[in-house]
Amino acid sequence: MDFDGTMCPKYQRAVDLLARRWTPLIIRMLLSRPRRFSELRATIPGLSDRLLSERLKEMEEEGIVVRQVYAETPVRVFYSLTAKGRDMERIVAEIQRWADKWEQLPLEHA
Amino acid sequence: MDFDGTMCPKYQRAVDLLARRWTPLIIRMLLSRPRRFSELRATIPGLSDRLLSERLKEMEEEGIVVRQVYAETPVRVFYSLTAKGRDMERIVAEIQRWADKWEQLPLEHA
Repeated sequence: MDFDGTMCPKYQRAVDLLARRWTPLIIRMLLSRPRRFSELRATIPGLSDRLLSERLKEMEEEGIVVRQVYAETPVRVFYSLTAKGRDMERIVAEIQRWADKWEQLPLEHA
Repeated sequence: MDFDGTMCPKYQRAVDLLARRWTPLIIRMLLSRPRRFSELRATIPGLSDRLLSERLKEMEEEGIVVRQVYAETPVRVFYSLTAKGRDMERIVAEIQRWADKWEQLPLEHA
């Protein structure tokens, strides 16, 4: 891919979405399977109910996540990725690859 | 790649780095070639000298960027990516691919 050094509004918009705290972690968790709210909440230490709700709502509005309600007793609610959300797997995989390669090394100017 | 839904500190650290405002855009610009401070500043509307200095300093500390001084008259200073920084090209490319594919579409729940 060729980067000519100009601004790209689409790139910047995608980056702004990924920059929201916990969003890339929630996406990473939902890549394996749909999750319940309580499950997402339990995995991320320090994440409040309010902030998790906010993030999931934003992701629904962006068309990345869908909220699925199963009318059982008790009602069960699952969050899962849309096609647009699942297509972020390649971004997540590249961040993971980079992190596994570089983050364990001492900081050095290569 | 298999994501088991657990926390990964390395992943989270990489994500936190990329979440800093303008950092992914600066990396994208430096992928094409080394850049002078003024050049980076001019391309990003609304980016102050102070904030750009701060971001570049952080990126130097993370071992992503090097500052190269050419002892000419007048002195010229260039910023370029280290091997660790250049290896982010695949992350940037995946974000760009995703953005080009999805960001032009109306928001919809696929």
